[in-house]
Amino acid sequence: MSHNTFGRLFRVTTWGESHGPALGAVVDGCPPGLRLDEGMIQPWLDKRRPGSSRHVSPRQEADSVRILSGTFSDDRTGGAITTGAPISLIIENTDVRSKDYADIRDKWRPGHADYTYDAKYGVRDYRGGGRSSARETAARVAAGAIARQVLGVNTHIRAALVQLGDLKIDRTSWDWEAVDNNPFFSPDAGIVRAWETRLDELRSAGSSTGAIVELHVSGMTAGLGEPVYGKLDAELAAAMMSIPAAKGVEIGAGFDAASMRGETAADGMRAGPDGPQFTSNHNGGVLGGISTGQDIVLRVAIKPTSSIRIEQATLDRDFEETTISTKGRHDPCVGIRAVPVVEAMAALVLADQMLRNRGQNG
Amino acid sequence: MSHNTFGRLFRVTTWGESHGPALGAVVDGCPPGLRLDEGMIQPWLDKRRPGSSRHVSPRQEADSVRILSGTFSDDRTGGAITTGAPISLIIENTDVRSKDYADIRDKWRPGHADYTYDAKYGVRDYRGGGRSSARETAARVAAGAIARQVLGVNTHIRAALVQLGDLKIDRTSWDWEAVDNNPFFSPDAGIVRAWETRLDELRSAGSSTGAIVELHVSGMTAGLGEPVYGKLDAELAAAMMSIPAAKGVEIGAGFDAASMRGETAADGMRAGPDGPQFTSNHNGGVLGGISTGQDIVLRVAIKPTSSIRIEQATLDRDFEETTISTKGRHDPCVGIRAVPVVEAMAALVLADQMLRNRGQNG
Amino acid sequence: MSHNTFGRLFRVTTWGESHGPALGAVVDGCPPGLRLDEGMIQPWLDKRRPGSSRHVSPRQEADSVRILSGTFSDDRTGGAITTGAPISLIIENTDVRSKDYADIRDKWRPGHADYTYDAKYGVRDYRGGGRSSARETAARVAAGAIARQVLGVNTHIRAALVQLGDLKIDRTSWDWEAVDNNPFFSPDAGIVRAWETRLDELRSAGSSTGAIVELHVSGMTAGLGEPVYGKLDAELAAAMMSIPAAKGVEIGAGFDAASMRGETAADGMRAGPDGPQFTSNHNGGVLGGISTGQDIVLRVAIKPTSSIRIEQATLDRDFEETTISTKGRHDPCVGIRAVPVVEAMAALVLADQMLRNRGQNG
Amino acid sequence: MSHNTFGRLFRVTTWGESHGPALGAVVDGCPPGLRLDEGMIQPWLDKRRPGSSRHVSPRQEADSVRILSGTFSDDRTGGAITTGAPISLIIENTDVRSKDYADIRDKWRPGHADYTYDAKYGVRDYRGGGRSSARETAARVAAGAIARQVLGVNTHIRAALVQLGDLKIDRTSWDWEAVDNNPFFSPDAGIVRAWETRLDELRSAGSSTGAIVELHVSGMTAGLGEPVYGKLDAELAAAMMSIPAAKGVEIGAGFDAASMRGETAADGMRAGPDGPQFTSNHNGGVLGGISTGQDIVLRVAIKPTSSIRIEQATLDRDFEETTISTKGRHDPCVGIRAVPVVEAMAALVLADQMLRNRGQNG
Repeated sequence: MSHNTFGRLFRVTTWGESHGPALGAVVDGCPPGLRLDEGMIQPWLDKRRPGSSRHVSPRQEADSVRILSGTFSDDRTGGAITTGAPISLIIENTDVRSKDYADIRDKWRPGHADYTYDAKYGVRDYRGGGRSSARETAARVAAGAIARQVLGVNTHIRAALVQLGDLKIDRTSWDWEAVDNNPFFSPDAGIVRAWETRLDELRSAGSSTGAIVELHVSGMTAGLGEPVYGKLDAELAAAMMSIPAAKGVEIGAGFDAASMRGETAADGMRAGPDGPQFTSNHNGGVLGGISTGQDIVLRVAIKPTSSIRIEQATLDRDFEETTISTKGRHDPCVGIRAVPVVEAMAALVLADQMLRNRGQNG
Repeated sequence: MSHNTFGRLFRVTTWGESHGPALGAVVDGCPPGLRLDEGMIQPWLDKRRPGSSRHVSPRQEADSVRILSGTFSDDRTGGAITTGAPISLIIENTDVRSKDYADIRDKWRPGHADYTYDAKYGVRDYRGGGRSSARETAARVAAGAIARQVLGVNTHIRAALVQLGDLKIDRTSWDWEAVDNNPFFSPDAGIVRAWETRLDELRSAGSSTGAIVELHVSGMTAGLGEPVYGKLDAELAAAMMSIPAAKGVEIGAGFDAASMRGETAADGMRAGPDGPQFTSNHNGGVLGGISTGQDIVLRVAIKPTSSIRIEQATLDRDFEETTISTKGRHDPCVGIRAVPVVEAMAALVLADQMLRNRGQNG
Repeated sequence: MSHNTFGRLFRVTTWGESHGPALGAVVDGCPPGLRLDEGMIQPWLDKRRPGSSRHVSPRQEADSVRILSGTFSDDRTGGAITTGAPISLIIENTDVRSKDYADIRDKWRPGHADYTYDAKYGVRDYRGGGRSSARETAARVAAGAIARQVLGVNTHIRAALVQLGDLKIDRTSWDWEAVDNNPFFSPDAGIVRAWETRLDELRSAGSSTGAIVELHVSGMTAGLGEPVYGKLDAELAAAMMSIPAAKGVEIGAGFDAASMRGETAADGMRAGPDGPQFTSNHNGGVLGGISTGQDIVLRVAIKPTSSIRIEQATLDRDFEETTISTKGRHDPCVGIRAVPVVEAMAALVLADQMLRNRGQNG
Repeated sequence: MSHNTFGRLFRVTTWGESHGPALGAVVDGCPPGLRLDEGMIQPWLDKRRPGSSRHVSPRQEADSVRILSGTFSDDRTGGAITTGAPISLIIENTDVRSKDYADIRDKWRPGHADYTYDAKYGVRDYRGGGRSSARETAARVAAGAIARQVLGVNTHIRAALVQLGDLKIDRTSWDWEAVDNNPFFSPDAGIVRAWETRLDELRSAGSSTGAIVELHVSGMTAGLGEPVYGKLDAELAAAMMSIPAAKGVEIGAGFDAASMRGETAADGMRAGPDGPQFTSNHNGGVLGGISTGQDIVLRVAIKPTSSIRIEQATLDRDFEETTISTKGRHDPCVGIRAVPVVEAMAALVLADQMLRNRGQNG
């Protein structure tokens, strides 16, 4: 939860720049004895991969992951399993264009981390955005796949795009099956056409748009979360806001809760077959920072891609006024590829909290 | 950032239950040589104190803070200063009523942490909500006063209530002077009457309402925040979501960013007298997780108080269905007293990030 | 494990100065449901208490501990139990003499933290040594008593003094029963007379002596310890070296292992009734940083008390050469009262590692 | 300081098994703007490398390090410099023999982590010792080279072998020049012949021996170290005890301090050209857990290599009694190659404490 390490017992450290030789993650504290090989990680990376439709960055990256440590296989284990030792994951960068970086080398792109990295560190790897590139999230997704193994098959972590620009899905048409069958991860097949039209228009205008991602976790057990500063919702909020371009996060009723009255907002309890059954889920599955067993439901606001072709006012490194028009291969809506990243971050938080809860409470 | 400790270099550990003998905080890692005595902490506690108007809980607590360690005074220091040793703060609970807790002992209040504490720990101090009571935030406010000393007089951390129920302030009437001159911390004096009427009605109905708090930090330096998991906005989000009843947080344009186009959302840069001047602040003072030097602007959604007189469906500890109507002394809108807590949490995050930045970058 | 906080899941934060109003500890992450009241902590404090014989400091401190939070009692719990919330412990300082501190205010006592605190912090609470006083260890002992509850009755943590000055016990006379029946915690009753004579002589000469404490933990389970930087022996070493005046720590054969051959040093394994039985314990119960299940055996070297009446060369705060002779109430051998502190630190390490192991490995 | 991560601000996470494809480290929190390329790391790895003389393991590993992230070079930087982003280091394993592991697969080698890894994790990568192999220390040495860059050229960190078996160096012949001119890192050229004879004899007997390493750090500034649980000597002790085969650590007079009187043990202070000058260094450069500015002097006891050809009693995984004679390529005295590892661990502790001190105290 600092610098490039996330988590307390299930810990992930990521590294790598957009145009360096590789990027990766070290996953430490993983329980032993879990099945793990590259084939269990690759599908999640493929979901996040650029170049998969005309609506995302055309950069061609295989995003092939290799496991360098932390698993073991012999005739007794019957396939690779985790050993409890740190798991090192590596993904090589292959489609790194030797292009002219002159513009972003000397100018700060508005809305980007260019200026703040220079202000903080005095030096910046400007090639493709360096460490601040969204490419970094590939390592999160790879680590998230391991977190899913920790959580087990009963925990279902799914996210979807519920708003693109000002175009919102029709919630009555929500269908999880639809999510993987359109290039936007939309749960509403009916809106896909409108989103395509919108993105085509933005792309040709050299502009971009924001979006909202919604996460659902089902199969939760009650009791995850540490009051008062390690609350489950607090850590989920941090995890989501650490995703590039995230500008807001809300759980359950979220900002709508501000307008509610107490008798509406509180989720009543009835007797259910395996414990309490709640009459609603305005709290998004968390009370007092601890999971209730209901589905966790949260939303993340993603701002429009800052790298756009439209010319913008900015400064160069000598603080002289200038303009910039960012070329290169960019997603017109980074919110789309944020969907698997939101899932991965949720998996990391939950796996860590599961181990922490087991540590304290047995 | 786990359990009851917040921060990495500037670290705050809080303790205490609502109806125990006392509550407090230990502030560790504080720089030495800062002026500090009780008189510098008490005003912030007074702001958060219950019993100050008919719109907040009538519980009478002096909330007098005592410093038990970590400061020193002799003729050379000319008044008490911090020594670099841990600062122990204690606030005694005085108005603890010996009332009948039978109802909340055996039943779970909807919207409360009652059920989740039982689910996690198997035991629960039900007296006044125990550890999950909002009373715990007094310790945060006390610690936040020390964080302000660390940040220095140039950093101004201010929050205000911008929405109560569905009643939003008129932003064109924003006046920071007004905030401390009404019982709601409203920056818009014109809405006070309407809010009073609304709260009187809710109180007599035995109900409650949600609210939105907005934070502004001015006098920021650029460069605070640690990519990629210790981003300034990620830590602010966690800090805010750890406040009791918080359900959402957004920075800058927040959820509105989802509907924006790239050329609007990105804040252009022009040459200013001391560094860059931004043409807007849709990013809320943070880019790539690092402060830009602009004001930090964020909003926190607070749900309605869950403890209401109106009868609600719930379960008892034997999982039998029943109803509950919560008596006792409660705020009809916990969002009001959340205002100084939001300020305190921002101060804690910023002080910690300041020291961490100084550690890495000198 | 930084500043004033020890542990990762079972976490202890201590605070307080020697001559301040009080000192204390906050114990966080404690499992719920454990029996805990002051009566379970006080006996360990009594063992460490000054003023108990002529061989330790004559300061009169009741060292009465109060629990301010984190436990709960009602007719269902049948006595106070832990709730999983932070446990705040406080011990008031009562015998604080209003004496003249002029000497230690302006001069640095050789062998003490006086100079280094000034060098690091630029300010120093010189009253009785402030934060660097061995009085701080009372809080460790109180917290250690809670750690013992976590570990359970099968884990026996015992320490003894095995050397005072150059006078070593006769190991063939080792008797744990003897330890609590002499003022030195000696396991060899036969050496008590000689140690008394030695201390009487040192006290009248205004001098002091070093000592060696030996720790034995029996009832260990195999599997505690985290390779490679959270090894059980590494954390025990840090814990012991954090005790005031500690200058060395060794486990099992320790420094003697340097002279051994491989076939002697390695502890052979035979089949035992409940798992392996080792033919020796040169490794002190730890292999590869993980407990073997054998007894943990380690030794801690404690230097002579630095506060002595004999005049020593030193500097004042203006870097002028001068001499100092420390009056006040000091232990002629701080190693004696270090015995319960060594036990407490071992308990803290083991409780934390137990929870961490449970977190990762179930 | 847990699992496979070391440090708080300057953080090192290592990964990799002895016979896996590679091992490595991620160094996070490194200050930006420091010169760093592979050429600055490789010499330290070469010093630790196996196969360099007949007295160490004959395994042939080039130990070539590659930097995969965290540095940047363009015409403005004039060579590679750190960027503040995580630095990923990788070292490929090349000389991994496809030999029969049957013996160590099914049996636990006495004195090794074989049994404890099985007891803790239920699975063990037995190939060459897996994660518990001393090969892991290559990553520490690589990271230590970066820590040296952080500390700067004025801090000299040097270690030497001062005892091999029961053969101790003659301290009056101490010569730092000698250390790099013999295969033992001995500062006493006169003892080299005797050590060679001893090792030749042990090797032919299929046995091994312990040793003692001594560390000197000069050019220290006063003020590093965090009381009371992050003391400089406590962290050095943990760092040293985390080295494979370490069984003891002492600082300054160490265990000899137990026999001293107070007036001898305390280091007097006189006025020096740049601050205090101490009349002795029995405290090894640390008082109250904080550096005094004197040289840091400590010693580490290393036990004999546990992998020996001589047959030993042990158990197999079915808890049946058996014997084992370990073949393979092993150091007859792991203490020799521990010398550069001791240096590296000291560098890691000091760099981290330097940043932490700067964070709190400016």
